[in-house]
Amino acid sequence: MEDYGRFLALLVSALLVGFVSVIFSLVWVFHYREGLSWDGGPREFNWHPVLVITGFVFIQGIAIIVYRLPWTWKCSKLLMKFIHAGLNTIAMILAIVSMVAVFEFHNARNIPNMYSLHSWIGLTAVIFYSFQLFLGFAVFLLPFAPVPLRAALMPIHIYSGLTVFATVIATALMGITEKLIFSLKNPAYSASPPEATFVNCLGLLLVIFGALILWMASRSHWKRPPEENRRLLAASQKKGA
Amino acid sequence: MEDYGRFLALLVSALLVGFVSVIFSLVWVFHYREGLSWDGGPREFNWHPVLVITGFVFIQGIAIIVYRLPWTWKCSKLLMKFIHAGLNTIAMILAIVSMVAVFEFHNARNIPNMYSLHSWIGLTAVIFYSFQLFLGFAVFLLPFAPVPLRAALMPIHIYSGLTVFATVIATALMGITEKLIFSLKNPAYSASPPEATFVNCLGLLLVIFGALILWMASRSHWKRPPEENRRLLAASQKKGA
Repeated sequence: MEDYGRFLALLVSALLVGFVSVIFSLVWVFHYREGLSWDGGPREFNWHPVLVITGFVFIQGIAIIVYRLPWTWKCSKLLMKFIHAGLNTIAMILAIVSMVAVFEFHNARNIPNMYSLHSWIGLTAVIFYSFQLFLGFAVFLLPFAPVPLRAALMPIHIYSGLTVFATVIATALMGITEKLIFSLKNPAYSASPPEATFVNCLGLLLVIFGALILWMASRSHWKRPPEENRRLLAASQKKGA
Repeated sequence: MEDYGRFLALLVSALLVGFVSVIFSLVWVFHYREGLSWDGGPREFNWHPVLVITGFVFIQGIAIIVYRLPWTWKCSKLLMKFIHAGLNTIAMILAIVSMVAVFEFHNARNIPNMYSLHSWIGLTAVIFYSFQLFLGFAVFLLPFAPVPLRAALMPIHIYSGLTVFATVIATALMGITEKLIFSLKNPAYSASPPEATFVNCLGLLLVIFGALILWMASRSHWKRPPEENRRLLAASQKKGA
């Protein structure tokens, strides 16, 4: 692999920023808010940011770049497809549970559902993500789709995957904005209490995480080599040994 | 050009969605809000969404895909660079004026500046955009940078351009969220008055515009052909005529 060290530095940075984002979401709900439980109250709502950031941002981000890890190139493509699909399925489940938490919290307090731009775009992202997951299973994982169909759909699969990922991060930023305005009252968001500054930093971390994943996913020289090249490479390495 | 019709359909869609977004921003401030003026009041604030959507979203989007318009391929590369840089400069100026409008409005009403995640990410985007513009001028427009430096910086220029563009749209969505929560009081945002639904639709239009521009900008077969190929093509067309 060309510039292996640079890839590794970016990967470690992305993992670190993603991991710190998850920790930040936990510090937010445990230190500044009411903590977590499943009781229809604010503590049930708090599952929403934690699960979105853990699943829909961090795990989805890892799922996107999993083919690019050079030490997986000796693994079979099918195994890597299962890992890619598995991580995305976990992200999908966490995203759905995170939505259930909000709906139950809203219903318990008679707050209307689905009125905000955050909810509109968030639900759209979940619907597109489930389409993406279903089509991914049907076309790329199951062995029935003909090669020309796979080849034709692959650029769309990559583009829509990256676009949904970016949209999820944008939706998370809107959600952070909403939650800080609604929950900070005395002092208000505009007075920049420590919670506001801390959660703004969480928002910045999400943008940095997204930017790192999109850079790694869009460098063509970091792609997993096609199967034929990998076989030739393995053969030449065996010969040299 | 491969699949010229499809490119044209996408271009017309993007122009239409972008244009309708600008109209929506004007309907928002003139029909639902106080209109526009430069008096330190809410009408000065209203320049902010109008100029951001017109300049920082729509014009920046057009600047991104301007090299891909097939009928410009007979124009010199230098002319196209001037158009690309010119459109981005206009977008930059409108973005700065839009920020001045908010700062003056905040100062006139003693509202703190730069407390929200929207403002943090928005200002970061403007700073990166000005770096991008400055480096673009210095490296790609002025004739001094050696070819290897241009070749090394081009992928970074493209990536950071697209990332800033996506970040600007995410920031606009946060701004819409903030403004609807702050300005809709009776009925509130959560009661979905007509303004809320209308401006949520504006948010969706911005996402669709961004998705169309990013698709067109990331199809490698829609790139402007390299200069040598263009000369060969022109010669063969002349010979055939």
